[in-house]
Amino acid sequence: ASNRSLLVLPGDGIGPEVMREVYRVVEWMDHRRHVSFALQEDLVGGSAIDAHGVPLADATMEKAQAADAVLLGAVGGPKWDNLDFSVKPERGLLRLRKELGLFANLRPAICFSALVEASSLKPEIVEGLDIMIVRELTGGVYFGEPRGIEDLGNGERRGVNTQVYTTSEIHRVARVAFELARKRGNRVTSCEKANVMESGVLWREEVQKLHDAEYADVGLEHMYADNAAMQLVRAPKQFDVIVTDNLFGDILSDEAAMLTGSLGMLPSASLGDADATGRRHALYEPVHGSAPDIAGKELANPIATLLSFAMALRYSFDLADDATMIETAVQQVLAGGLRTADIMSTGKAKVSTSTMGDAIVREL
Amino acid sequence: ASNRSLLVLPGDGIGPEVMREVYRVVEWMDHRRHVSFALQEDLVGGSAIDAHGVPLADATMEKAQAADAVLLGAVGGPKWDNLDFSVKPERGLLRLRKELGLFANLRPAICFSALVEASSLKPEIVEGLDIMIVRELTGGVYFGEPRGIEDLGNGERRGVNTQVYTTSEIHRVARVAFELARKRGNRVTSCEKANVMESGVLWREEVQKLHDAEYADVGLEHMYADNAAMQLVRAPKQFDVIVTDNLFGDILSDEAAMLTGSLGMLPSASLGDADATGRRHALYEPVHGSAPDIAGKELANPIATLLSFAMALRYSFDLADDATMIETAVQQVLAGGLRTADIMSTGKAKVSTSTMGDAIVREL
Ligand SMILES: CC(C)[C@H](C(=O)O)[C@@H](O)C(=O)O
Ligand SMILES: CC(C)[C@H](C(=O)O)[C@@H](O)C(=O)O
Repeated sequence: ASNRSLLVLPGDGIGPEVMREVYRVVEWMDHRRHVSFALQEDLVGGSAIDAHGVPLADATMEKAQAADAVLLGAVGGPKWDNLDFSVKPERGLLRLRKELGLFANLRPAICFSALVEASSLKPEIVEGLDIMIVRELTGGVYFGEPRGIEDLGNGERRGVNTQVYTTSEIHRVARVAFELARKRGNRVTSCEKANVMESGVLWREEVQKLHDAEYADVGLEHMYADNAAMQLVRAPKQFDVIVTDNLFGDILSDEAAMLTGSLGMLPSASLGDADATGRRHALYEPVHGSAPDIAGKELANPIATLLSFAMALRYSFDLADDATMIETAVQQVLAGGLRTADIMSTGKAKVSTSTMGDAIVREL
Repeated sequence: ASNRSLLVLPGDGIGPEVMREVYRVVEWMDHRRHVSFALQEDLVGGSAIDAHGVPLADATMEKAQAADAVLLGAVGGPKWDNLDFSVKPERGLLRLRKELGLFANLRPAICFSALVEASSLKPEIVEGLDIMIVRELTGGVYFGEPRGIEDLGNGERRGVNTQVYTTSEIHRVARVAFELARKRGNRVTSCEKANVMESGVLWREEVQKLHDAEYADVGLEHMYADNAAMQLVRAPKQFDVIVTDNLFGDILSDEAAMLTGSLGMLPSASLGDADATGRRHALYEPVHGSAPDIAGKELANPIATLLSFAMALRYSFDLADDATMIETAVQQVLAGGLRTADIMSTGKAKVSTSTMGDAIVREL
């Protein structure tokens, strides 16, 4: 990984404009820190459909396989909403996850102290919130077979999906959660519906086994996913690391993200296993979507994508110091009162996407 | 249904003590309103396991089939936590749902004006909140086959569940949602993950078809379940009626319940289809669990169970006026400042389970 190859996939909607601000930070790193990247850019999602008829071209997939990391903007928009299931923009993202083997999705839910007021929750409930959700990303009902829609005649149809997990799928993602917990609050909450689903029973038993065998020093609690959805609203600070499956993770991580009130601030990382050379595939992306309604208007918040790039520095390029510099610069700019529209509050200065990017580069 | 037969299943934990307060209201109705019920009581959950070795005896199931309505307290507790999946207290509840054909679970999430402060959300976000969640209750991954855990050898196991819906299952629950919407805000939000699950594609298409054919006057919006989990936190008052499947409904209805800050206040109804004589099976239960930690201490809030009984009066016994009387009495007692421990706040009077029951009967 010495040439630090990064594949950039800006995607649709606000993707390209937030990615522009990342390029400025990359440039700054090149000039000021003498850290350079071998950048490539390509299409994903709707823009790939428009160009190639598919949401992710094979050639793009090959570039992703070859890169040290992928940085993605966002995919989707009304233009492609009525396409068939199998060719929608989202399939590009799902293909990347599956073929790169990105089984561990790290979704921090952090409440930035300058933005406590942006939350719909009371300040005392979310102030200082710092949860790490580890979502399984290449298994479960997202990829399980059999699946599909069958015609039963008489106007009746039947839609089927399969929720499936194996021991090793559960262990490898739980391991990521336990390792992360050791560097944080040392507590893991594992979520499933073991009271109604056998796949949840297996999940619970295997997480417990791995814990007892290798991570007995880490606190482990099991919680039904419905209860977790409640506890996140009631008292989110009770959580340190949450580990859960693909579908529950999709829902709980979005719920947790919204607790912070500032979706435009939240990055994510999706990691694979290390290969023989120690290299692991990785994809970084903001939690927010493509926000087609504000695309091209210089209204989007570039911070989530910048922080996703910072996560790439930390997890893929062994540049933790530079990651911290970016994170600190973001915090300082917020403390200085600059706000994009999504996180605006009275008494602050409302700025555009590029002005926010400017300020962060200047702070660096 | 002229003898108004009601099967009462107090269940475990705080179940019996909250049910005692319902009996007092039943008695009051008998004496003061000359409305009497043919009551029977039986066991469900852990208490049934202790007595019969199963969470729901066949004889109890027969009584439930014969009754006009079932009123359930709560099931489960640490004593039965380590039992095998197939004989846990929850199976009693699931058997009742399935064999009575209770496909439509009505879960109101209402923020009582006297209790706005109990919410972890800002008052302006939840004040006046009134959502009705209609959860499909007899299908989906809860009951789909194949299911189970397989041994693959080499210490590997595989856990499987099946998510499955048919056209008619979707139509009948969507119909309940559209009918309810017409009597409320006339808007339905249907939630699934049609972007990743074919069963969700079918759900979306069939809800839309039924809408266009029979309920074109009702507003209909489709929303991915992860987005719904976010929107519930961000701006819950945007919703009127939400209709969704069994698993998403489990999670979203619990999240919505917790927004109100007072789980001890929320009732639910589970309804089947009307038979030839116009009778429909129905089960009513509070949203809260069995709360084993406070059981037997006279700390539990009986209001959710009383309001579940009120729902029974409205939906099973055609006694809407009496239902309203109970609901009004509850509101007046709250306005008077009485609070059980779970909804206590400074300046109010903390009372026991039976004192709360007293006050409500007196108010009646
Ligand atoms: C776009 C969609 C396929 C995706 C998912 O469901 O995983 C998204 O919601 C996410 O969480 O990244
Ligand atoms: C107890 C459990 C089986 C049940 C469910 O998952 O349906 C509960 O969470 C509920 O919502 O009634």
